[in-house]
Amino acid sequence: MVRRTRRESRPSESRETHYRQITNTLPKPTVFSADEVENIHQTSLRVLQELGIRILNKAARDLLIRAGCEERDDLMVHFPADLVEEMIALAPPNFLWHGAPGYAVEIGPNTLLFAAGAGCPNANDLDRGRRPGSLEAFKEAIQLSESFDVIQKLGPSVEAQDVPVAMRHLETLFIQVTESRKIPFIFCRGTQQVEDSFRMLMMARGVDEETFRNTPYASTVVNTNSPRQIDVPMAQGIIDFALWGQVNVITPFCLSGAMAPITPAGSLTLSHAEAMAGITLAQVVRPGAPVVYGAFSSNVDMKSGAPVFGTPEHIRTNFGAGQLARRLGIPWRSASGTASNAPDVQAAMETQAGTWGAALAGANLIYHSAGWLEGGLTFGYEKFITDLEICQTVAEAMLPVETTDEAIGFDAIAEVQPGGHFFSASQTMNRYATQFYEPVISDWSNFGQWTEAGSVSATDRAHALWKKTLAEFQPPPMDAGVRSALMDFVARRKAEGGAPIME
Amino acid sequence: MVRRTRRESRPSESRETHYRQITNTLPKPTVFSADEVENIHQTSLRVLQELGIRILNKAARDLLIRAGCEERDDLMVHFPADLVEEMIALAPPNFLWHGAPGYAVEIGPNTLLFAAGAGCPNANDLDRGRRPGSLEAFKEAIQLSESFDVIQKLGPSVEAQDVPVAMRHLETLFIQVTESRKIPFIFCRGTQQVEDSFRMLMMARGVDEETFRNTPYASTVVNTNSPRQIDVPMAQGIIDFALWGQVNVITPFCLSGAMAPITPAGSLTLSHAEAMAGITLAQVVRPGAPVVYGAFSSNVDMKSGAPVFGTPEHIRTNFGAGQLARRLGIPWRSASGTASNAPDVQAAMETQAGTWGAALAGANLIYHSAGWLEGGLTFGYEKFITDLEICQTVAEAMLPVETTDEAIGFDAIAEVQPGGHFFSASQTMNRYATQFYEPVISDWSNFGQWTEAGSVSATDRAHALWKKTLAEFQPPPMDAGVRSALMDFVARRKAEGGAPIME
Repeated sequence: MVRRTRRESRPSESRETHYRQITNTLPKPTVFSADEVENIHQTSLRVLQELGIRILNKAARDLLIRAGCEERDDLMVHFPADLVEEMIALAPPNFLWHGAPGYAVEIGPNTLLFAAGAGCPNANDLDRGRRPGSLEAFKEAIQLSESFDVIQKLGPSVEAQDVPVAMRHLETLFIQVTESRKIPFIFCRGTQQVEDSFRMLMMARGVDEETFRNTPYASTVVNTNSPRQIDVPMAQGIIDFALWGQVNVITPFCLSGAMAPITPAGSLTLSHAEAMAGITLAQVVRPGAPVVYGAFSSNVDMKSGAPVFGTPEHIRTNFGAGQLARRLGIPWRSASGTASNAPDVQAAMETQAGTWGAALAGANLIYHSAGWLEGGLTFGYEKFITDLEICQTVAEAMLPVETTDEAIGFDAIAEVQPGGHFFSASQTMNRYATQFYEPVISDWSNFGQWTEAGSVSATDRAHALWKKTLAEFQPPPMDAGVRSALMDFVARRKAEGGAPIME
Repeated sequence: MVRRTRRESRPSESRETHYRQITNTLPKPTVFSADEVENIHQTSLRVLQELGIRILNKAARDLLIRAGCEERDDLMVHFPADLVEEMIALAPPNFLWHGAPGYAVEIGPNTLLFAAGAGCPNANDLDRGRRPGSLEAFKEAIQLSESFDVIQKLGPSVEAQDVPVAMRHLETLFIQVTESRKIPFIFCRGTQQVEDSFRMLMMARGVDEETFRNTPYASTVVNTNSPRQIDVPMAQGIIDFALWGQVNVITPFCLSGAMAPITPAGSLTLSHAEAMAGITLAQVVRPGAPVVYGAFSSNVDMKSGAPVFGTPEHIRTNFGAGQLARRLGIPWRSASGTASNAPDVQAAMETQAGTWGAALAGANLIYHSAGWLEGGLTFGYEKFITDLEICQTVAEAMLPVETTDEAIGFDAIAEVQPGGHFFSASQTMNRYATQFYEPVISDWSNFGQWTEAGSVSATDRAHALWKKTLAEFQPPPMDAGVRSALMDFVARRKAEGGAPIME
């Protein structure tokens, strides 16, 4: 093959990407017929009506009972099927999710957003090893998410264990709004924490309360306590976020064989019921409140009970979850992930399998797409970088293929003689600078060059890239007055003792 | 979460897999409308008719001219569109491909076969490092392919550079039929080599010449010399395999920007034309000869001209190739692969992206699914093992989801109290031993256990597994008389000087 060094002979144009707002063009697998979808949906309604959900939060129970639910023994709330269907129909099928001014993304049919690995109590990188999560690690993870377009939404990346829990929401939201333009995540750990966070977010976004209450700016994730239970802070989170018009991502974490039936269909029946219970509560609180239907069903290793990800069961359950979400007509969230303990080949393989599975299933938001290790116990810096390649590859695979006559290329083919090459064909010359995807981490040098350059592995290259990214990081611009007001707010609320977490 | 050690308390049943004959149930992306498919197809026919293909083999030219093609200047053969359409229609849409007695696989619509990384001049493993291919490495690679059901077909894994090329076909076919039951690969390096190989294969399979000539037992890959050229041995291979009723996998290797137009559609237009030229020759030789439509279009790195794999371009071109193959109604072959120089995260990511792309595209045979490194310059033993996990995961993701009432699981859900667990639910007890996929290489222990066990990476575990697999390998049974006759044949033909390769 002829080797060329075009890039050096002509200045590279920049290639436009579409990662900010990805359109999912892939056809969606149907593991269930329409009748089967309906059967599972109806069975989930029976679970809600006949078996009920244990709701530990009194305010939530009261709201549901006023709306028509029935409380029986032992905090069990039974949901009439009609009420559930009626409430589900109120949830918006799509909405615009706002970050800093100028940054907004649509979530709805055929959109795809990625969020990085989240909720990790530990952090791990090749320099510092595995260590408990800290505010520094949280900040670095947010800066990494901010630096790459393919991550459109922030998550609670690393748990800042060095900040007292009553202050943590203040410090972590301050970082999210000062280091990133993207949509922040707020834990629902009690009404006061949530309200503090919303006050800060209104200041950061420069909007008044009325605007804020009618515009999605924030998100939380509500994990039900599967099977069939919603605890006090989670139910309160649904109420608080719905009241404020902010986004509840209601996500049963149904691991087949552990907190859910061992079959994919059974796991989905339970997950679907629990998600509908949460969505019903949100709509009872405020009709039309923006919600995301969450489905994070994988399985456990039956040898140990440990959760596993990127398995065939995870993929197939996702396929079914997508069908159920589309039955409801609500944007839905899935997740990728890996149980690997190191940023090794297993971690890359499981995460990619999970990401393809969720993307094929038509998930509109994929959490844990980059940087999750150990089933979420650790945020991996190198893995964050290598996983970006997967997200970007999936996004690019969804691009349309050009079919103009020029692209079909009879003229280009006619221009090159048999056995020749297209390196200098006019079509190539017109397109070479921007035609192809440019990888984040792949090294395409040959074995000799690669060996001479020190046989650097993809993981070591990722190590260098996150360090460079953080070293060169520039926070997005923010008005000095706004920043100062935010700092004052944080200082004042810390001086007041912060806000307790709800148990 | 409750931890259980069920496996130890109850004997494990064996889980049935379906990897021998995988049914591809995934929906196929349509990057082209029906009109666009037709437009590309017609443009390819124009390439064949107006521009022509340079065919260096006189026998092939003569056959085509007798069939109605026209030879113009410079060995250029021009194909009438009608002739091409007529010949394409003769190719069987599916067939049964036979290995040793009792081993046969179907190739046709919605079937999926995997073949390991092939054609590699080097081999690489963590013990012996990177080294030139040898007969020993060839044998080991065949033994590895034989050991895992998800690899259904053999390929020319590693080039046995230590065997003179005139003898190589004898030694490598002997290994394929004595160490494996699966469908062997034969290089088309000249009529005499091919006939030697067919004679050996008839002996190994215990069939007479008439049966052999009417039953697919062998395969070759014909790579056109893109653009628009077929060389002497390749054209001869098409003739020889078609005459004997054996399978020509006719595969233009069209790298966008190098041997093909830089656009996916243009690359496919050329690839489609060249594949149709080869298929036409095969059908002219013998109407109804079994062929596989090959499409291996990826792109090059425009900085170096080096071929790259698992890129978004590779994936999207595959999607289009599947549509063109289905337009012809002929089984088709694609490929996975990676340009990585080591069995690292890049290698795993690119290979998986390529495998998902090809599987989604509906490829019926995916070459280079396991063990390819450096864009095919090296067969990697550890990578062979880790890639099996990808192939098996893709295969399992295609399984139907059970939707019986028992699987939908209302009763299972009713059996477990809120906040409880399903580990001991009756549904779980009835299914736990066989419900979930069991990984080849993933380690699902927790960080503490994994660290105590020595922090062994997936690649190191793969190292241990290939060594164990080879150490425990037992060749499939073969009649001693047949084996001895094969050995005599090889010895005799070697004494006669083997067979020359055709230039």
